[in-house]
Amino acid sequence: MLLLHRAMVLRLQQACRLKSIHSRLCIQACSTNESFQPQRPSLTFSGDNSSTRGWRVMGTLLGLGAVLAYQDHRCRAAQESTHIYTKEEVSSHTSPATGIWVTLGSEVFDVTEFVDLHPGGPSKLMLAAGGPLEPFWALYAVHNQSHVRELLAQYKIGELSPEDKVAPTVETSDPYADDPVRHPALKVNSQCPFNAEPPPELLTENYITPNPIFFTRNHLPVPNVDPDTYRLHVVGAPGGQSLSLSLDDLHKFPKYEITVTLQCAGNRRSEMTQVKEVKGLEWRTGAISTARWGGARLCDVLAQAGHQLCETEAHVCFEGLDSDPTGTAYGASIPLARAMDPEAEVLLAYEMNGQPLPRDHGFPVRVVVPGVVGARHVKWLGRVSVQPEESYSHWQRRDYKGFSPSVDWDTVNFDSAPSIQELPVQSAITEPQDGETVESGEVTIKGYAWSGGGRAVIRVDVSLDGGLTWQVAELDGEEQRPRKAWAWRLWQLQVPVPAGQKELNIVCKAVDDGYNVQPDTVAPIWNLRGVLSNAWHRVHVHVAP
Amino acid sequence: MLLLHRAMVLRLQQACRLKSIHSRLCIQACSTNESFQPQRPSLTFSGDNSSTRGWRVMGTLLGLGAVLAYQDHRCRAAQESTHIYTKEEVSSHTSPATGIWVTLGSEVFDVTEFVDLHPGGPSKLMLAAGGPLEPFWALYAVHNQSHVRELLAQYKIGELSPEDKVAPTVETSDPYADDPVRHPALKVNSQCPFNAEPPPELLTENYITPNPIFFTRNHLPVPNVDPDTYRLHVVGAPGGQSLSLSLDDLHKFPKYEITVTLQCAGNRRSEMTQVKEVKGLEWRTGAISTARWGGARLCDVLAQAGHQLCETEAHVCFEGLDSDPTGTAYGASIPLARAMDPEAEVLLAYEMNGQPLPRDHGFPVRVVVPGVVGARHVKWLGRVSVQPEESYSHWQRRDYKGFSPSVDWDTVNFDSAPSIQELPVQSAITEPQDGETVESGEVTIKGYAWSGGGRAVIRVDVSLDGGLTWQVAELDGEEQRPRKAWAWRLWQLQVPVPAGQKELNIVCKAVDDGYNVQPDTVAPIWNLRGVLSNAWHRVHVHVAP
Repeated sequence: MLLLHRAMVLRLQQACRLKSIHSRLCIQACSTNESFQPQRPSLTFSGDNSSTRGWRVMGTLLGLGAVLAYQDHRCRAAQESTHIYTKEEVSSHTSPATGIWVTLGSEVFDVTEFVDLHPGGPSKLMLAAGGPLEPFWALYAVHNQSHVRELLAQYKIGELSPEDKVAPTVETSDPYADDPVRHPALKVNSQCPFNAEPPPELLTENYITPNPIFFTRNHLPVPNVDPDTYRLHVVGAPGGQSLSLSLDDLHKFPKYEITVTLQCAGNRRSEMTQVKEVKGLEWRTGAISTARWGGARLCDVLAQAGHQLCETEAHVCFEGLDSDPTGTAYGASIPLARAMDPEAEVLLAYEMNGQPLPRDHGFPVRVVVPGVVGARHVKWLGRVSVQPEESYSHWQRRDYKGFSPSVDWDTVNFDSAPSIQELPVQSAITEPQDGETVESGEVTIKGYAWSGGGRAVIRVDVSLDGGLTWQVAELDGEEQRPRKAWAWRLWQLQVPVPAGQKELNIVCKAVDDGYNVQPDTVAPIWNLRGVLSNAWHRVHVHVAP
Repeated sequence: MLLLHRAMVLRLQQACRLKSIHSRLCIQACSTNESFQPQRPSLTFSGDNSSTRGWRVMGTLLGLGAVLAYQDHRCRAAQESTHIYTKEEVSSHTSPATGIWVTLGSEVFDVTEFVDLHPGGPSKLMLAAGGPLEPFWALYAVHNQSHVRELLAQYKIGELSPEDKVAPTVETSDPYADDPVRHPALKVNSQCPFNAEPPPELLTENYITPNPIFFTRNHLPVPNVDPDTYRLHVVGAPGGQSLSLSLDDLHKFPKYEITVTLQCAGNRRSEMTQVKEVKGLEWRTGAISTARWGGARLCDVLAQAGHQLCETEAHVCFEGLDSDPTGTAYGASIPLARAMDPEAEVLLAYEMNGQPLPRDHGFPVRVVVPGVVGARHVKWLGRVSVQPEESYSHWQRRDYKGFSPSVDWDTVNFDSAPSIQELPVQSAITEPQDGETVESGEVTIKGYAWSGGGRAVIRVDVSLDGGLTWQVAELDGEEQRPRKAWAWRLWQLQVPVPAGQKELNIVCKAVDDGYNVQPDTVAPIWNLRGVLSNAWHRVHVHVAP
């Protein structure tokens, strides 16, 4: 197993023509046609199909609260008799007043009571009101599971009349068909939209993550942007000038290059799921990667559009070119104070490790907000504006927030928590892996550590006995600048395996330069969305006799 | 007990003529002559004298490593015969080459091997080389304990010749005799130098801590500064002008007023001591207080002396007017980047809650560094300079740093850890208190929460069952500005006592806006100096039948 991974690293390094230039590794982007196995996007959920995993995914996606709420309907649905409805009848049920109906194939469902429970938000489900679900399920492929269909069945009220059992008129062609080909090493958490992470043993092989295995977090299909016609729209300040910047225009701003680690708020969510089901993708330890980004500084571009830091509580809102069928784009915002601060080094990046951005990472332009959660690094950037309040995007206001373990989907008030910006201190073990067998004698433990807000990691403690005693790991990777420690530290510890030990409970925990530490356990930081999972990382291994 | 405290709160509030002006409480300073019981400073260690406490204090002050190292000497000392030495002979032993001798009364000691083990640092002990210890022990009154004398006895090599048994020539008058009179409510952790905290039940009675019970952390005797002749020396930049500022001069700079919470790095050290002995004062939960500070901005004063933020990695070094017998002043530093940032709001404060600074809090001028550990808020400020490196002060480089639990006094390398600047998120329960009996029915739980670096406290979770289930507390006190949340939030939770419960394990934990959390337990953050004690705060109470 390990040998296989070693071979993959070598192959990847060869394919990428890895060049080490002093301490800064510069990885040339792989041509996807050269060495990758093409992998067709599929509407079915990839990965193993064991029922355990199925249930976990369902719980993850729908939230435990919602699942429980369905139970009521089982009895009721069984008592109802089958009715026949025309397409016209269905199409007249599009509001709470009339009832909200949808169809799937020839079946008709009254989802009025479910709308508020829809994990993707009521507005997304309302897009399908009065018509077929298929075009939306094609976009959000997570619905294509037997468990989701089973739940939907509880809301069935009848059948479409035979003359209306025709293919839906709305275009159902696969919106993900044009997604790029991906590296086969990536562990796929969701194919559509594409979400995948590098395997742990590849993740910390390089300080700079090679582009092809950089973790990918997409919310929608990947737009296919023509670089020649691409324009970035920057709304001007009152009295200033709005900008419509071509790629060439962006290149005329002074170019900055910085090494920044990006981490998804959901990194290590799978450990939270083990405490109690959460809603979200099952990220393991790989929703984090590091690249050297090149581009224009956001503060320079905003200044050219006439913006100043006079209204300190304003926000800079970003919109992507990725959008859902209604044209709603992915969006997020950061405080203007951060955007305008040259020391915060916020970039409009057009390069990733010396190459144009790969399509999965925002070609041709993405935002890079050092020290801040990945969700604000908007990809395929289309529009920048300064607003008195933060973005009204679903992903800014109804997602990517943390709550008390006591809050569930019935009690959550998204307005009560701030949007995640800076992330807390994080670390994980990438070698050895959970369940592995290590040789007696000496064991090498490797991993990564990072903190948000430019806070440098100053120490990583490692325990072999579940946290009773600790040893200080050696920090590798680049030294970080004070207050601008945007990138991770890799670390390792070579340590004798205590004689006679049959198993080891390996634990790591990091400390940042604000002396913030990771919490001991997962349960007290559990939250319904499964974000901010930064408890001590624990790996249980066997020792070879 | 509780009634007594209530009475004391009332008396204190009357004495202070508490005024609530909108949300900002403005406390008039108490006249120390009006309502306090004068309390004579004493060279002996105050508090209960049980041997348990004695040993704990000794371990605390000297470090377990050093204590163990003494054991060797017990046997050796017993074998040596008594010699007679002249004062001249003693005075010629002042270096490792000649041996390092000191006297106490008529006894002579060879402390050559102990110098490197001296908890206060070798340099402090070397001040006494070749002469009497008395003048130094008078300053550092912690030495005046039987246990310290017992340890010193192991190094005895003889007696002074009878003609030299005279009173030491160095002035031994009590350097603390001129310390101010303090409020009797303060819980004294050390009388000389004076270190004391308000009792928990007073601490959170007011959002703004009344000056007389603001926690006091002194390292040396309190200087008695004449405000008319006081001058603050600010070293000019190359090409700039050095300044010698009178109090009137400082008042001519624009005046800023901000509410800032100060916390000692050793707050809650007593909980760490319960895991394993540490070196330091036994602070409970009260080494934290909040005041409204008024003064000139450091950045304005530095600018007038010609300083700019060109050398971003420089440091601003502060020296106090409090000094030891050699004239070494208390000192500390902060990065120039923070000092010059108007948004960081670093003050040269001359007012505390609308009054001139009390003597214990730095009269006439102290530094206030919002969001940063108390040790950098240098009191009785005498000198400000910009240096390429941080302060060479003992308290900057050989103290106030955090280490792994695996590091002890034999292995510690102070250069391996950064000086503490921003502090991690903190919270504590002030009501009810550990061991108290609460009424069945309903219990009100109160406390404080704060985080460093201007990060706002966004939530406090409270558990009645040791951390299994949580409830969200109500946050009181002033709303904090984004990125400038310099002051604490008080919080409370009124909650029914679960029926039939005979005891409650109450726990609190806070979250800041970087979603940093407190660690679950103390042992994994234990460190030899007992700083940064911010694990969940736990209180065990009984329920009245």
